Amino acid sequence: MPKIFDVSHAQNLINEQIKMLEMGHNPAELYDPITYFLHIGGKRMRPLLCMMGYYLYNDDYESVAKPALITELFHNFTLVHDDIMDNAPLRRGQPTIHEKWNKNIALLAGDVTFVKAYELFEYIDPNIRWQIFKHFNTTAIQVCEGQQYDMNFETVPQISLVQYLHMIQLKTAVLLGFSMCMGAAMAGANDTDSNNIYDAAVKIGVAFQVKDDYLDVFGQAHKVGKKLGGDIVANKKTFLATKALEKANKDQKNELFHWFQTKNHDNSSKITHVTQLYLDLGIKQETEDFISIQFNDAISTFETMNIAEHKKQFIIQFFNSLMQRDS
Amino acid sequence: MPKIFDVSHAQNLINEQIKMLEMGHNPAELYDPITYFLHIGGKRMRPLLCMMGYYLYNDDYESVAKPALITELFHNFTLVHDDIMDNAPLRRGQPTIHEKWNKNIALLAGDVTFVKAYELFEYIDPNIRWQIFKHFNTTAIQVCEGQQYDMNFETVPQISLVQYLHMIQLKTAVLLGFSMCMGAAMAGANDTDSNNIYDAAVKIGVAFQVKDDYLDVFGQAHKVGKKLGGDIVANKKTFLATKALEKANKDQKNELFHWFQTKNHDNSSKITHVTQLYLDLGIKQETEDFISIQFNDAISTFETMNIAEHKKQFIIQFFNSLMQRDS
Repeated sequence: MPKIFDVSHAQNLINEQIKMLEMGHNPAELYDPITYFLHIGGKRMRPLLCMMGYYLYNDDYESVAKPALITELFHNFTLVHDDIMDNAPLRRGQPTIHEKWNKNIALLAGDVTFVKAYELFEYIDPNIRWQIFKHFNTTAIQVCEGQQYDMNFETVPQISLVQYLHMIQLKTAVLLGFSMCMGAAMAGANDTDSNNIYDAAVKIGVAFQVKDDYLDVFGQAHKVGKKLGGDIVANKKTFLATKALEKANKDQKNELFHWFQTKNHDNSSKITHVTQLYLDLGIKQETEDFISIQFNDAISTFETMNIAEHKKQFIIQFFNSLMQRDS
Repeated sequence: MPKIFDVSHAQNLINEQIKMLEMGHNPAELYDPITYFLHIGGKRMRPLLCMMGYYLYNDDYESVAKPALITELFHNFTLVHDDIMDNAPLRRGQPTIHEKWNKNIALLAGDVTFVKAYELFEYIDPNIRWQIFKHFNTTAIQVCEGQQYDMNFETVPQISLVQYLHMIQLKTAVLLGFSMCMGAAMAGANDTDSNNIYDAAVKIGVAFQVKDDYLDVFGQAHKVGKKLGGDIVANKKTFLATKALEKANKDQKNELFHWFQTKNHDNSSKITHVTQLYLDLGIKQETEDFISIQFNDAISTFETMNIAEHKKQFIIQFFNSLMQRDS
């Protein structure tokens, strides 16, 4: 019987490893927030992808739950700092660190979480450690660059689709690529395979972010669990907004700019009008097409790789279930 | 002729290496502040100590100017983040990043500077890299802990001398210890020597910080280049303030608490009174004694080590010149 990757089992292992992390205790003002933040949960997508990357070449994916936390700790570090920058009150429905404590504590808690990620390189085989370390540093810098682009974009009226895609690739997709690639490398994948897995996971990451943008406008409100149109109300530069501004004629562009410069307006009217403009411009279909192309491109990479068929099918199936969500 | 360590030559090499660092360029909003901050200077004490640690075992100290920057980049990362936390407008007489740009940019610039420090591990011999990397992570966490203690102490009326010394050891001294120890380790020092050098440099670091506290009250104003008593005005918990509160009788303690809770008072009167209390309590002499003991303790460690005599003398001479400053 081939061994099947059990997603909830892997998530449990990840959560157990998080509980067992050797954290300091003093000063409590520093370590309590770190522990708090690590336990407010999430799907643990990055260490999960790391374990899946390992599983493609080695059944014993349970053995890498600990080094896989490098990706989760790094991700948490970026979330804590991003929450400060965005002045976000909530993360996963819970108060952010800077809300519950203060911004200085959040800044420092983020810094220490980052070092804790580096400490886990101890659990990577020395033969492959520095290769992964270099890739990790590159990824970390790219994620910071992505965050800076995102902040830059808030202050300009319009960006190009190329700029938008570059930003989300850096800010969110490269870390997914790194996570899966790191797992594969730990299992001994050759460079070509590692690179292919990286590229495919980055594409999935971009598709995933664009799907987020899509669902915010065209999702099913009762399933999204929040009101639709949040990005429209916040004048956020999304795939849809960027594409719409590129395709709009002069009148439509003026109308879009009008809405995107509006604050505290009657939100439901704003959402209705912008959504209608998106529909008029064919943005709904174009976004669906973009997601499909990115996704299928990534899947075909996996299909052509020299991996056991049942593992390939598992990965494709897993990514499919991620993308098919309608909320 | 034995090769002598040339401090200004080493500083020039460090500055050249900083200029040659491979920094990104885009987004400029992220990299311009990093480059700006790295070039506003300073004495480059940490990479200098790293090169000196190397020189103790190997004449060719010039060869480690590049990996020595790990300590300088890390130090700059902590300064940028500390400046945010302290809301400091100036650093070395120049506007801080968050003043010249904004806090979000400073936060992210600090993060990237930290990753840039890690990238330089590439320039450490793989045989010793891992050992230094582990020590670096430990040091980084200690520095963050020190900063948190420092912030905690601002909110309590009194701390013990033990708490104060523990805080400055973490916040400033361990990085000096790491820097010198890293240099020695790169030159092949054995573990005993490395540990001794670390301990001695940490003691020098503590002595150096206490000397700072001392000069702020008892320095020569025209040489300090700033007004005396800045720490008193700011109600800062220093070695002197902590020691004074420990030694004071009930009346003196009330008087000290009175002044340390005062804000925006007539500063010259506040400084005069607190300085007089320090003198009455014998704090001037006790601080001088403490510095001497710490310093001599560190020096005797170097004296007993199995290092070429002229190198020993150079190090002792260098630390002496650091400590003899009266400004």
